[in-house]
Amino acid sequence: MPAGVQSGTGVLPITQFFSVAVSGSRDPSLDRETQRFQAQLSRQTGIPFRPQAGQAATLTVHADHGREAIQKLGEDESYELTVSGSSAQLNAPTPLGILRGLQTFLQLVQITANGFAVPAITIKDQPRFPWRGLLIDVSRHFIPLEVMKRNVDGLAAVKMNVVHWHLSDDQGFRVESKVFPKLHEMGSDGMYYTQDEIREFIAYAHDRGIRVVPEFDIPGHSRSWVIGYPELASGPGPYTLETGDPIIDPTRESTYRFLDKFLAEMARLFPDAYFHIGGDEVDGKEWDANPKIKEFIQSHGMKNNQDLQAYFNQRLQKILTKNHKIMLGWDEILHPDLPKTIVVQSWRGQESLAAAARQGYSGLLSHGYYLDLMWPAARHYAVDPMSDAAATLTPEERSRILGGEACQWAEWVTPENIDSHIWPRNAVVAERLWSASEVKDVASMYARLNAVSLDLEWLGLTHRSARQQMLQRMAGSTDITALQVLAAVVEPVKDYSRWDGSKGPIDFHAPLNHMIDAVYPESDTARQFATLVQTFLQSGGKDQSAEAQIRTWLALWRDNDTKLHPTLEQSSLLQEDEPLSQELSALGAAGLQALDYIDKWQSSPDAWRTQQSVLVDQAQKPEAGLLVMVAMPVQQLLEASAVAGRN
Amino acid sequence: MPAGVQSGTGVLPITQFFSVAVSGSRDPSLDRETQRFQAQLSRQTGIPFRPQAGQAATLTVHADHGREAIQKLGEDESYELTVSGSSAQLNAPTPLGILRGLQTFLQLVQITANGFAVPAITIKDQPRFPWRGLLIDVSRHFIPLEVMKRNVDGLAAVKMNVVHWHLSDDQGFRVESKVFPKLHEMGSDGMYYTQDEIREFIAYAHDRGIRVVPEFDIPGHSRSWVIGYPELASGPGPYTLETGDPIIDPTRESTYRFLDKFLAEMARLFPDAYFHIGGDEVDGKEWDANPKIKEFIQSHGMKNNQDLQAYFNQRLQKILTKNHKIMLGWDEILHPDLPKTIVVQSWRGQESLAAAARQGYSGLLSHGYYLDLMWPAARHYAVDPMSDAAATLTPEERSRILGGEACQWAEWVTPENIDSHIWPRNAVVAERLWSASEVKDVASMYARLNAVSLDLEWLGLTHRSARQQMLQRMAGSTDITALQVLAAVVEPVKDYSRWDGSKGPIDFHAPLNHMIDAVYPESDTARQFATLVQTFLQSGGKDQSAEAQIRTWLALWRDNDTKLHPTLEQSSLLQEDEPLSQELSALGAAGLQALDYIDKWQSSPDAWRTQQSVLVDQAQKPEAGLLVMVAMPVQQLLEASAVAGRN
Repeated sequence: MPAGVQSGTGVLPITQFFSVAVSGSRDPSLDRETQRFQAQLSRQTGIPFRPQAGQAATLTVHADHGREAIQKLGEDESYELTVSGSSAQLNAPTPLGILRGLQTFLQLVQITANGFAVPAITIKDQPRFPWRGLLIDVSRHFIPLEVMKRNVDGLAAVKMNVVHWHLSDDQGFRVESKVFPKLHEMGSDGMYYTQDEIREFIAYAHDRGIRVVPEFDIPGHSRSWVIGYPELASGPGPYTLETGDPIIDPTRESTYRFLDKFLAEMARLFPDAYFHIGGDEVDGKEWDANPKIKEFIQSHGMKNNQDLQAYFNQRLQKILTKNHKIMLGWDEILHPDLPKTIVVQSWRGQESLAAAARQGYSGLLSHGYYLDLMWPAARHYAVDPMSDAAATLTPEERSRILGGEACQWAEWVTPENIDSHIWPRNAVVAERLWSASEVKDVASMYARLNAVSLDLEWLGLTHRSARQQMLQRMAGSTDITALQVLAAVVEPVKDYSRWDGSKGPIDFHAPLNHMIDAVYPESDTARQFATLVQTFLQSGGKDQSAEAQIRTWLALWRDNDTKLHPTLEQSSLLQEDEPLSQELSALGAAGLQALDYIDKWQSSPDAWRTQQSVLVDQAQKPEAGLLVMVAMPVQQLLEASAVAGRN
Repeated sequence: MPAGVQSGTGVLPITQFFSVAVSGSRDPSLDRETQRFQAQLSRQTGIPFRPQAGQAATLTVHADHGREAIQKLGEDESYELTVSGSSAQLNAPTPLGILRGLQTFLQLVQITANGFAVPAITIKDQPRFPWRGLLIDVSRHFIPLEVMKRNVDGLAAVKMNVVHWHLSDDQGFRVESKVFPKLHEMGSDGMYYTQDEIREFIAYAHDRGIRVVPEFDIPGHSRSWVIGYPELASGPGPYTLETGDPIIDPTRESTYRFLDKFLAEMARLFPDAYFHIGGDEVDGKEWDANPKIKEFIQSHGMKNNQDLQAYFNQRLQKILTKNHKIMLGWDEILHPDLPKTIVVQSWRGQESLAAAARQGYSGLLSHGYYLDLMWPAARHYAVDPMSDAAATLTPEERSRILGGEACQWAEWVTPENIDSHIWPRNAVVAERLWSASEVKDVASMYARLNAVSLDLEWLGLTHRSARQQMLQRMAGSTDITALQVLAAVVEPVKDYSRWDGSKGPIDFHAPLNHMIDAVYPESDTARQFATLVQTFLQSGGKDQSAEAQIRTWLALWRDNDTKLHPTLEQSSLLQEDEPLSQELSALGAAGLQALDYIDKWQSSPDAWRTQQSVLVDQAQKPEAGLLVMVAMPVQQLLEASAVAGRN
């Protein structure tokens, strides 16, 4: 939602003769962007453009001056877009603003009764926060460059401006190091990015107005480092990519000689001014168990492991400063010994973000934006970096809150399904960070999210289409009508319940090809059904149109298990979903019976209701890591049927 | 369907530990193929493979010797595949046979109640014809290399071995010529393949066991040639890419000096032994109108334009021979003055193919395999190169029939929808050319085609998914349930009716973004519905299961227009489909009423039936270039209702 919108009258038709003219600054990335823009508009509309010679341009684009060779935090992204019935004008101080404005133009294109068109409108827009990012973890499961690229296209479409690349963790070191080649050679399963690929990706992101901030997570989360270089570890090992909990040893000078060379290499490879060193979840066991480290702590007047980590971070910070980088890390790096120039990324919450700001540190919010927790979009949408603890900050302290980042941790994603875990939900985090805090109407958000989701598919993202293919694989057939009925109303368990439910540690090489891996994190069908039930109940059972729609859904579900059962039975991937299918059918039948009671103005019998509630309770328990999301609204119908006769 | 199949007992499980070992010949294309094979198997199953060190390979692959550097017509493609409950062995004389056998293995993988598995089986297989191809026209609409590549993946999956690249025609010259750069520069809209891209594509196809046969269509279909080189034309011009009907002038020696250089350049670029010079549909108007050409015909003792074309072809043939190429052309090149080495590709029919064979010429069948005519798969499946006129040939004459090619002419396709025009129907032409002529059970074909269609999507082909996106574009929404109901039962008009229906000449730059461009050439739903009606009627109206299914469909259609109407009305792309939607609903209602009469053992009233027949007749007329394919089975229900009371 732009900062300022004024509707005009009329529409600008998008025809075969659509054309773009560029005036002002001739940044090369601007020419490439206008070409991409036209290709994208052509894809969205199916119209191959054939501008007529001598005809005035449909859209004129004007940037006052060029952009920075290395995109800067806070670089001007504002733009003004004016669309009339005959032409459109997009002005911006920099090409970055043009990038943002062109995405707005694409979002405005609609099919109408008279062809594709953009409504006449005047938009003045700029972002609320200068740092709006998405973290993608490529360590737990490697994400190939082409998948990273299409996700960058998605980020550009929703006007985010940072991709935070979580490049190393216990399970894999994903960057080629020429200085220390055993990092990627022994610290990965052979899947990593070459330095050429990294450069290619950074250029790709830069073209789209997106900064690439690398993260190398140390001193914890560092198993992949010590396979090739065990001398970095605080413990004796042995370590493999699957076993051991090493922490880097901050007491040896050799560690810093290593990091000095390594960080210099990476600082050259990644041009962004910011460099993320992780620093989260340092499990102190190896430090506690190492007498030399314990002695170091004592002899240096430190109180505990936290002080030791702060010492480590101070050393890192000096190396990074020498390499002209600003250090960024998770909450745990916050320590009075560190200079105020560092930036703290909060996975713990607004409180720790506010605490950092009060102490003079800049910060980013990620708590509340973890896409891997499988929350509905509305829940992420409600999280504001400036709310809760941050609400009491002074204006100066508030200015230290730079923005936030959604996080896609990769324990449970593969290149096949990562898009559907990120999209479309990431778009609501993007809006939270771009638009005014007052923009928070949930119904409007979902309506616009649906439109954005459609546009994103034209970029090649597979967030919707992958489910279909994965379901066909499980069914061994293209005929998946009944399977889709079930898939459309279930969601994966929330938060870290999938971890809790897994027996023992996660096997990062296990296939992720079950229903839980294919379904969307949020069920549109269930949300819409819940709204229908609410409408119906609020009408006192009088809204016949709502009731008819509710009945159609309930009947579909009631009859579905009979159709689906043979498919589930014959597939090892689907057998675990049999109880879900049965529960859905039972819920359909129960809901229909409840409606019958309501229609007849009869109270449903207590005994029947008790029996049905057992069923609903059962349906609300996870099966195969999945939740039947229509159980709750059916429960509401049951409750309403109890009092139907008493009105 | 393989040449020989013997079922065994048990299944070979496909687990995470699946591995491949290669013995015998170490052709480099073989290593790449086994890697691709494993990646494809991984995609199909969603299993990332982790072979255990020291464990015996699941599948052992053995080729006796290497393959030709330039793939030869008739090179051995046979293979033997033996699968037991514990391992599989694939043997072949050449790596080409291995390529084919690995595709068979992929087709055998099924999801079972105990995981993915391949049934125990012994297969001995080889193709019936040595030339099994697909022509792709890239002139009328340019098809980018990536789209060509994924279609080559499809060809490999169905064991075809030739891609016939129709590279020039009136509307575009699509190859970079360094000798005559105005060919691609002025003879195209800027979209052409560079020579590097051509080489890349040929290597890509070679890796998959597919020959690339180029076609440059002359002396007709040559408008794109004469824009840059008007001296080649037989008329005075002027010509543009959109206007004029030039033919190349065969009477000037300068023409042959041009072709001598050009063909030498292209002969170097395309390594295949065969070279296609088109030669079809030479419209003699420019020859007739040119006194010099008429005089040439007379002075050289020729009778007519056909003789002149034969003279031209003889000259071409000599140039090609000098460049070590065998000339290939359409029916029209057949002329007693041409040597028996040339190959004739028949677009006219088996008769002309047989005639060529009798005269000692080799031939290929394409008549009956034109995918752009929108025929159902079964109709292509019924066409056999050896049937009809060819059935009476002697064994020696029969041996001259090398195989055939499906043809995808590109008047009405774009990169977006070309996959759905080619696939899955092309797979039935592939089977016709690979398998024994006795393999022709249509029900079995459709069942297997459905499975192949699913596999093809894992290659990245968009033959099924594109429809969904295109419908969403037309509707301007992701909610296309009702639109899909309509889209699933309509088919584009057949043969050249779309041309006849277009006002004036085709505008090759017009958007192809209407319903006719999105729907599949063949409606599975309509075919299945017709079968249901047949089953029901043959049971004398007693098959209640069939009737219940028929009623479900009919009710869905009857109720659909109400839901769909608002969507159709607000989209300029869909308004033209309003009558179709109304007709479908009326057919649904009529069919249900007919069933009611049949159920009650009542004859339906004549007046009612007459009224309904008007409706059915109306529904059988094309609207917006589309046919409602369920009109005919509804008509059968109406007819049955007439006699229902009289049994």
